[in-house]
Amino acid sequence: MPRPTPVVPAAPTPSKASKPTVKLRLRLRVTRGDEIAIGPGKIELLEAIRDQGSITTAAKHIGMSYRRAWLLLDETNRLLRKPVTTSAQGGAQGGGSVLTPEGEALIDTYRALERRAEAACAVQIDALLRMVAR
Amino acid sequence: MPRPTPVVPAAPTPSKASKPTVKLRLRLRVTRGDEIAIGPGKIELLEAIRDQGSITTAAKHIGMSYRRAWLLLDETNRLLRKPVTTSAQGGAQGGGSVLTPEGEALIDTYRALERRAEAACAVQIDALLRMVAR
Repeated sequence: MPRPTPVVPAAPTPSKASKPTVKLRLRLRVTRGDEIAIGPGKIELLEAIRDQGSITTAAKHIGMSYRRAWLLLDETNRLLRKPVTTSAQGGAQGGGSVLTPEGEALIDTYRALERRAEAACAVQIDALLRMVAR
Repeated sequence: MPRPTPVVPAAPTPSKASKPTVKLRLRLRVTRGDEIAIGPGKIELLEAIRDQGSITTAAKHIGMSYRRAWLLLDETNRLLRKPVTTSAQGGAQGGGSVLTPEGEALIDTYRALERRAEAACAVQIDALLRMVAR
């Protein structure tokens, strides 16, 4: 007698479940004394501000609290030579925020560094990835 | 009337205190699903085991608890294809630990990757460092 067709989706097959993704994660930070002047969280926030046009929308977009976004931005602007954002209008709460040329250059240089490092180290990265069990 | 010579060392001069060190920190991790198979803490521990000859002495040398060192090592050996350490004698608590050829290769490849990335990205690293206020 045939079994009834299951009405719930099948669980992932064991072969798929037993092969989690193996990947390299590269994190670049520039520290100034004990503080982090440039890091992945700040770059992600700046990219979101560039794309969304305000701190509020940017923070929501990347799942960060407005307070944390504001603090990160304040820290970045304090630790860098030139501010990376500027208020387009109104206060920090309401007005839009746009990147300064220095903010754009920061994102570009940071992402270029990541791409270049991965390209230059392809052999070593591959060797490390192959050491991990699948 | 001349002031008495101070008997405590002078505090750092303001010009020195106002110039904290700015540097790049590069962190490489290989993740397997949600777990970290290879990362800076594990590499530092393996180097200490290589140099010190036992988990106990290695952990003490880098200011890590024995328990944490043991857990990191266990995780590494579980997530990699081949174990990175082997017990020279006795149990994990008492006997010495030495790196396997795979453990040596892991350290070498990881450190080579770091050096190579920094060399390949010297221009971008310099540009980022120059963005930070001094």
